[in-house]
Amino acid sequence: MASYKLLLLPGDGIGPEVAGGMQVVLDALKETGLATFETETDLVGGCALDAHGRPLSDETLARARAADAILLGAVGGPKWAGVAYENRPEAGLLRLRKDLELFANLRPAICYPALADASALKRELVEGLDIMIVRELTGGVYFGEPKEITTLPDGSKRAVDTQVYTTGEIERIAHVAFDLAAKRSGRVASAEKHNVMKSGVLWKEVVTKVHAEHYAQIELEHVLADNCAMQLVRRPKQFDVLVTDNLFGDVLSDLAAMLTGSLGMLPSASLGAVDDSGVRRALYEPCHGSAPDIAGQDKANPIAMIGSLTMCLRYSFGLGEAADALDGAVMDALASGARTADIAGEGTNPMGTRAMANAVADAL
Amino acid sequence: MASYKLLLLPGDGIGPEVAGGMQVVLDALKETGLATFETETDLVGGCALDAHGRPLSDETLARARAADAILLGAVGGPKWAGVAYENRPEAGLLRLRKDLELFANLRPAICYPALADASALKRELVEGLDIMIVRELTGGVYFGEPKEITTLPDGSKRAVDTQVYTTGEIERIAHVAFDLAAKRSGRVASAEKHNVMKSGVLWKEVVTKVHAEHYAQIELEHVLADNCAMQLVRRPKQFDVLVTDNLFGDVLSDLAAMLTGSLGMLPSASLGAVDDSGVRRALYEPCHGSAPDIAGQDKANPIAMIGSLTMCLRYSFGLGEAADALDGAVMDALASGARTADIAGEGTNPMGTRAMANAVADAL
Ligand SMILES: CC(C)[C@H](C(=O)O)[C@@H](O)C(=O)O
Ligand SMILES: CC(C)[C@H](C(=O)O)[C@@H](O)C(=O)O
Repeated sequence: MASYKLLLLPGDGIGPEVAGGMQVVLDALKETGLATFETETDLVGGCALDAHGRPLSDETLARARAADAILLGAVGGPKWAGVAYENRPEAGLLRLRKDLELFANLRPAICYPALADASALKRELVEGLDIMIVRELTGGVYFGEPKEITTLPDGSKRAVDTQVYTTGEIERIAHVAFDLAAKRSGRVASAEKHNVMKSGVLWKEVVTKVHAEHYAQIELEHVLADNCAMQLVRRPKQFDVLVTDNLFGDVLSDLAAMLTGSLGMLPSASLGAVDDSGVRRALYEPCHGSAPDIAGQDKANPIAMIGSLTMCLRYSFGLGEAADALDGAVMDALASGARTADIAGEGTNPMGTRAMANAVADAL
Repeated sequence: MASYKLLLLPGDGIGPEVAGGMQVVLDALKETGLATFETETDLVGGCALDAHGRPLSDETLARARAADAILLGAVGGPKWAGVAYENRPEAGLLRLRKDLELFANLRPAICYPALADASALKRELVEGLDIMIVRELTGGVYFGEPKEITTLPDGSKRAVDTQVYTTGEIERIAHVAFDLAAKRSGRVASAEKHNVMKSGVLWKEVVTKVHAEHYAQIELEHVLADNCAMQLVRRPKQFDVLVTDNLFGDVLSDLAAMLTGSLGMLPSASLGAVDDSGVRRALYEPCHGSAPDIAGQDKANPIAMIGSLTMCLRYSFGLGEAADALDGAVMDALASGARTADIAGEGTNPMGTRAMANAVADAL
């Protein structure tokens, strides 16, 4: 039986709770005998800063490199609002993404039928919604240099961030998007601002070329990022796979997640290239943040974190059956009325994080 | 009686039609004797490129400088998809914004009661919605240098855009936002990505300082741009004035406009500083684009363009009464059932651009 090494990085806020919920499910999974998992737990974000003076220590980074996959909860919170830019909790997450070269961020925006009414949008617009956002994660304005604040002669300041994209960076993310689309509906939309940004011009050019050379059977549409935000609201189901850069991906994926009404349910995968030994570096985390306002109250929804484990089974370990079983268990738990507060409709009785995780584990 | 010099730049696509509709209303306004207007018409965008080989000629720019206000329709369309980056239709609009230093872009996102059902969002979430987005318009990644595509030694390419903001640029847009809020609900939300961008760090710092020093009575909230997109969908009415940078403003203002269900109805104002002679440079344009798919068919909704004239009366000429009268005329026309196709509900009979403009002019 295959054995996998998982690094758990619960992080801050509700991170430890939802990670705890996922652990319950992981234990149940071990009992099914499908695979064995060796887990190690470590610190990232504000808690790492508190413990080691850095939001990601070199030791943790080394452990992340050695693991078969990483499962991360969430980072950040008001407690660290005042720390230096270099040490903010988010820097730990960004360092993981960059140093492990996790360039492909997959963010499914799925509207769970049981939750369609929780959406701000009219039911008919979101029912059955299933978009896969493919966000470039290690380039663009997040990491380009110069990135600095300088003081001008008159004492005022000047801040600079640099958006950089190369042909190679765009090619590899385009391949991820087209490959995914081939297994889905065969449609890709690519969002940029080629009417204002040179990186948008190159983005459009390279995506067009990759498409023409390798994926003629896939339907490709180019959409301006501002129009994309509008279309996501107007008629979200027109999209299947949506590929975009790091910054637009940040905004558009959050927007799409919110449309579904299922924010607390949505996982994400951040994937690197397959290395010489056939291993693909990968980090899985919920789309939601650290939600400090409800942290420590056993209120958070663990399903996004559990779904991150499902994605891990599927994308890192090829355990499609186990992943399907876990997806099914979540559906069954929801169908039987299990709800945390964020997704509790009228007349339902919300349960805690732990109870929700147990409901999923029981259904497994 | 005061006399004002208006430069009309109808532009491309539906631009000429909606500008024509506005002209009908302008003529009606002249008859009321509230003010006289001297109008000149010129080219911008694709049509200027076709005529002069540039999307904005120096002569047109000089006319724009000499005018008391500019009313622009829309620019761009597939016809010019292949032209060089420097000559694309949008470059004409961007040159106007930059050369006239129209740094403050005001984009109201208002949900007209008669149209609340046209929104993708549930009626109760958008009914009565009235957000004023204040977008910085002459800085950030739109204009920062370097902005270029270079070829690397291996033949692949590297594209760079540069986001730059200075203390002064942020201060002046913050003042616009706070001053507006003082006349509205007294609340400002400021959106950036200080957790990833140095320009976001400076943005937050300067907005905080301007607030503390000059606007202690205004309520200020900082929100991350990705979260802002989510909150706009989840609970849009939580916002009153929303101030943000050029690129986030581009995406968030389109998003907010789409939420209202009234996209064809929303105007915008782009304002500069007041110069030595007491004149404030200003350009007014609809939020919608050139909609090439319906151009030339007398289908476009002229209300956003008429609303741009209303904003012009109010912000450039201090003609509050005339502006109110025009707003009232639009309301009356809508109340009497006048609808273009984009806002026609079930059981209503859509009318054309020209008929809609006449309905407003008659109501005046
Ligand atoms: C926490 C933050 C740095 C991060 C980002 O901006 O990428 C988050 O918003 C996300 O989308 O994963
Ligand atoms: C036409 C385009 C250059 C422009 C922009 O990106 O600013 C438009 O989208 C807008 O919002 O006015």
